[in-house]
Amino acid sequence: MQNITVALDAMGGDFGPRVTVPAAVQALSHFPELKVILVGDRNLITPHLSQLGYQNDARLSIEHCDRVISNSEKPSLALRNSSGSSMGTAIDLVANNAAGACVSGGNTGALMALSRFRLKLLPGIERPALISALPTASGGKTWMLDLGANVSSDADSLFQFAVMGSALAEQYLERPARVAILNIGAEEIKGNDLVKRCAEMLSQTQSVHFSGYTEGNQLLHDSADVVVCDGFVGNICLKACEGTAQLFIDKLKSHMMSSSIKGWIARKLFSGLFTELKTLNPDQYNGASLLGLRGIVIKSHGSADVPAVVNAIGEAVHEVKRQVPSRISDRLEAVLLERHY
Amino acid sequence: MQNITVALDAMGGDFGPRVTVPAAVQALSHFPELKVILVGDRNLITPHLSQLGYQNDARLSIEHCDRVISNSEKPSLALRNSSGSSMGTAIDLVANNAAGACVSGGNTGALMALSRFRLKLLPGIERPALISALPTASGGKTWMLDLGANVSSDADSLFQFAVMGSALAEQYLERPARVAILNIGAEEIKGNDLVKRCAEMLSQTQSVHFSGYTEGNQLLHDSADVVVCDGFVGNICLKACEGTAQLFIDKLKSHMMSSSIKGWIARKLFSGLFTELKTLNPDQYNGASLLGLRGIVIKSHGSADVPAVVNAIGEAVHEVKRQVPSRISDRLEAVLLERHY
Repeated sequence: MQNITVALDAMGGDFGPRVTVPAAVQALSHFPELKVILVGDRNLITPHLSQLGYQNDARLSIEHCDRVISNSEKPSLALRNSSGSSMGTAIDLVANNAAGACVSGGNTGALMALSRFRLKLLPGIERPALISALPTASGGKTWMLDLGANVSSDADSLFQFAVMGSALAEQYLERPARVAILNIGAEEIKGNDLVKRCAEMLSQTQSVHFSGYTEGNQLLHDSADVVVCDGFVGNICLKACEGTAQLFIDKLKSHMMSSSIKGWIARKLFSGLFTELKTLNPDQYNGASLLGLRGIVIKSHGSADVPAVVNAIGEAVHEVKRQVPSRISDRLEAVLLERHY
Repeated sequence: MQNITVALDAMGGDFGPRVTVPAAVQALSHFPELKVILVGDRNLITPHLSQLGYQNDARLSIEHCDRVISNSEKPSLALRNSSGSSMGTAIDLVANNAAGACVSGGNTGALMALSRFRLKLLPGIERPALISALPTASGGKTWMLDLGANVSSDADSLFQFAVMGSALAEQYLERPARVAILNIGAEEIKGNDLVKRCAEMLSQTQSVHFSGYTEGNQLLHDSADVVVCDGFVGNICLKACEGTAQLFIDKLKSHMMSSSIKGWIARKLFSGLFTELKTLNPDQYNGASLLGLRGIVIKSHGSADVPAVVNAIGEAVHEVKRQVPSRISDRLEAVLLERHY
């Protein structure tokens, strides 16, 4: 069994080591091939390890650094001051091949800027993109990108997102992924120039299985395997799904938590429904990948709890196993060959 | 009591007169001050009136026209060929003051192009915008615009949307409306140039109560009274909320519809919750207003059923009573004065 080393930004996210340290320990028990490097302030990390009764072993190490990049720090400033920060160091461990992937719940803009600068982009990629899997009504998954790595994109970038999304999704699907562009209507005449130009490019490409436009209300309804959009739209749209799902789950929960006899019956009979609805909240997954880099970077939710950070580490393990960057690279090469010859 | 005349595009929407005719008849019984002009093919309208046993009276008339603008027709083509179409004629009735408002469930792009051409924009407005009210967790409403009248916007247009949205929302709220811009984060550094420029303009304006940025997951959570965004983002985001809501409602429904004893219990336990969840689906409201015109135009969902079209007619009645275009005009004048002096 090949070892997989993940560098975890222990200071990232809203809760820092209080969540990342127990998550690292749990992840080690889930994934026997895993080694974790906790990157951050040793003085803040070790008390949590002691609290868990964790004995130092060869699978868990600490890479000490003093600085943390705050959530309000501008990416340009973070880039200049990244030296000695937990996020910068975690990315450096990947750049230096000391880790196969890094995971951070810190400032998204800074994570993208630092990753791009330290790891470099894959040939043929102009902008990295954040991708995540959304649950669908039938129990499947739809991968959506970009979820906010970029605040604006051109048609070439959107096209590259489609190629990268296909390459990632097909690692799970093991069949060609149906790729759709998120738009305000399914008809060909609908949309802005960006989506129209990207649609034209995709419809001329054999190596991506383009299925046309999809709309916001089709996202959780299996309309495509990969949904492509610019980062501004993707971020807002994903959060809109999450906010609506949470509202509905909260309403059901308040019925089930009622202390009345009705609440008791609901809990006894319909706990399955509650679980089902929770699995349909796109928020349940944690661990969005930053695709397009020469290394694996996983963004964890800032508000992620322990199981969610374990998921993000699991995503990192999975991508290392599947060698996602080189899969994307191969796919891009095929597309570029097709487009140029 | 002042009469209010609404021109209803009887051919618009997925079901045409089969839905619009019964909706007109129901609306007449709901609103005693209402008169309806059914605009469309008399030969297709009258059988539905007969079927309802409706006797012609002074409150319901038919304006005959042969042509229907299809959903796939490009707005530019619709504009050239609009003469004698049900949509074009309904708008003309407003332009000629024969009706106080028109309602159509037809092609949105065509409705916007025709309305703009025939009714003209209010002074100070560069682009009209589609606005609709979304239900919120606390039982309130949040007005959101633009929902797709434009596929792209500049900061000036977004600013004008904020002014128009405030003027409309305050007709209902009877207090200053909190206006937020939809963005990918609440922090000031987040977002694209469009939202940053609009935020700067709004923060310098006394006559709009600007409350900062809001995110997709806050939309149904009372974060603002008016949420401003460009039409591409707004349309996708609203549909994402609707699609998620529908998914959750369908899951609950499938439990309640089961013929087992559990289904019977679920119906007993969850009928109140089911009704509550349905009222939280943004899709429940019908009748988005096209703001910024010198006349009232209400867009009904293409898939609207009879009660939904009655709602859209109700929205038209409400806006005529409140004289929404002149309220917007007054508000714009105040803002322009403030900005120039």
